Amino acid sequence: MTIAPVCPSPIMQHETVQMAHGAGGRLSQTLMQQVFMPHLNNAFLDLLDDQAKLDLPAGRTAFTTDTYVVSPVFFPGGNIGELAVNGTVNDLSVGGAKPMYLSAGFVLEEGFSLSELETIVKSMAEAARKAGVMIVTGDTKVVGKGQCDKIFINTSGVGIIREGVDLSCRNLRPGDSIILSGTAGDHGMAIMTSREGLSFQSQITSDCAALNSMIAAVLDAVPAIHAMRDPTRGGVAATLNELAVSSRVGIEINEASIPVKPDVRGACELLGIDPLHVANEGKLVLAVAEEDAERVLEVMRSFDHSRDAVIIGSVVNDHPGMVVMRTVFGSRRIIDLPLGEQLPRIC
Amino acid sequence: MTIAPVCPSPIMQHETVQMAHGAGGRLSQTLMQQVFMPHLNNAFLDLLDDQAKLDLPAGRTAFTTDTYVVSPVFFPGGNIGELAVNGTVNDLSVGGAKPMYLSAGFVLEEGFSLSELETIVKSMAEAARKAGVMIVTGDTKVVGKGQCDKIFINTSGVGIIREGVDLSCRNLRPGDSIILSGTAGDHGMAIMTSREGLSFQSQITSDCAALNSMIAAVLDAVPAIHAMRDPTRGGVAATLNELAVSSRVGIEINEASIPVKPDVRGACELLGIDPLHVANEGKLVLAVAEEDAERVLEVMRSFDHSRDAVIIGSVVNDHPGMVVMRTVFGSRRIIDLPLGEQLPRIC
Repeated sequence: MTIAPVCPSPIMQHETVQMAHGAGGRLSQTLMQQVFMPHLNNAFLDLLDDQAKLDLPAGRTAFTTDTYVVSPVFFPGGNIGELAVNGTVNDLSVGGAKPMYLSAGFVLEEGFSLSELETIVKSMAEAARKAGVMIVTGDTKVVGKGQCDKIFINTSGVGIIREGVDLSCRNLRPGDSIILSGTAGDHGMAIMTSREGLSFQSQITSDCAALNSMIAAVLDAVPAIHAMRDPTRGGVAATLNELAVSSRVGIEINEASIPVKPDVRGACELLGIDPLHVANEGKLVLAVAEEDAERVLEVMRSFDHSRDAVIIGSVVNDHPGMVVMRTVFGSRRIIDLPLGEQLPRIC
Repeated sequence: MTIAPVCPSPIMQHETVQMAHGAGGRLSQTLMQQVFMPHLNNAFLDLLDDQAKLDLPAGRTAFTTDTYVVSPVFFPGGNIGELAVNGTVNDLSVGGAKPMYLSAGFVLEEGFSLSELETIVKSMAEAARKAGVMIVTGDTKVVGKGQCDKIFINTSGVGIIREGVDLSCRNLRPGDSIILSGTAGDHGMAIMTSREGLSFQSQITSDCAALNSMIAAVLDAVPAIHAMRDPTRGGVAATLNELAVSSRVGIEINEASIPVKPDVRGACELLGIDPLHVANEGKLVLAVAEEDAERVLEVMRSFDHSRDAVIIGSVVNDHPGMVVMRTVFGSRRIIDLPLGEQLPRIC
């Protein structure tokens, strides 16, 4: 859509999203001019064509998508906009790609606060700047009151896969070390406790962060990483199960080695949730040959958000497709996927 | 997400979307296995990594996104799934790109019919097959009852821009012919009349279609097209205004030359809506040097969905940024953007 010539009109006075903001007419332009463009402007988006035209560097292209429906929209440690940028940056990064360009598709509920929308858009711009990516194309739809919950954001992304890496959840080999980049369950418990109005002595904060710089440094140091995943929905448990099933290997982890913040552990106990099932938004699970593990840890620990990186287990020949945990009591139990829904709208 | 080993469990019995279908656990896998994969499987999606890894051919890359929130989800002539594929295929095509890969991000309302979902997914697969694109990466979120309206679908797309074309809404030059590929307002009026339960003698059908083959043929014949746009939200009027403003030229159109189906015209009159403001989902507006116009029309008319292609006006030096229509009564009136919202959730 193209920005019309100066249009000083009373329609700029709205404080909330109107149906007409999504109608493709003059009010849609006003929304672009006043809320989106001041924060997201760049050489691509400024053209406002229906598609961005990009000169991608040589290499294979990674392409990913995620829609964010987190509730509440603002949570301790972030908001839906920041999450939408970082989440898609991370999905590209764990494929060995340098994230480059994102799209942003908004669904807005009629009546949603325009100043909250602007805060979210600002966070997206800031998160994109920090991660070194550009939001180059977008779309906004408005639906009636009660037809969505405040705001949903889809971000899709493209990146260029670096030469010489082969990351896949099918690449695990017996003997590999499994590394977790930090504490488990922070994001999910930040959402749950803020949603439920549970009060703990200190507030639990989301770990929402872009991991691309750290991942790039790890791959610089050890290009032969076997697999990387960001343990979001379903938590570390779901990620490990995916890896075990895809690679047809077993995974054994040690409960004692899994870092969990005391507040997060407390909240999990209170709510009866296993921290391994809780979503993270700034963590990495990685499989690498045992001899390379220490080098990986060293690099990871040089980054703030992965200074607690640790080996939590290893890949084994036994029980292919299954994840088994040695508990702090010395027993062993199967770590399965959650069957049902413990944590709706966590991301 | 990875498909687990065979998992014959009672959770397959659901007839509607459950919150747990979006939780990243076992029920999410079941949804993938039973509803999505049977229709959308391909070499990329089958890998079920968090990102697709693509070998794009050489050339500049076009990247676009759109979220579809159309209501009703099923309408005469199509459904939200078909629309989501064709719409994004068209957004790439009007940039001069060969559409190649799409992502699909679903937001599902708890309680939405799984068999309706499957019909939609099937339509997406069929539309993708017809347009020659692949859906290579996806995401599914579930929100509670009343937190979205049935189903929203985001599709983003990448394509390769052909050499030697330079399509931009900033490229119009005085003297250019403006071509419309067929009748105006079909999609929007199909939605409106089905939504309002208005009954006309014959049913109005959406024009929802992928235009990439036709556009490719037009560009083969006349690479020097100046601009192309698909007149969706805001209709032909919004598209012409965008072109006029971006290129700082005037556009004059002749009312008598604009094809509108009699039923669509009747419905528009009844509802007090200008057909030029009504969304299309299978039409093209194009600007080309006058001497090339007949050649373009000839190619367009060889395709079924653009056999009514016609020159509706031309680019002029006067009134830059404005679109003026010569009416059937011989008078002239300004064709502006709709200010407000006449047609919510049309796409």
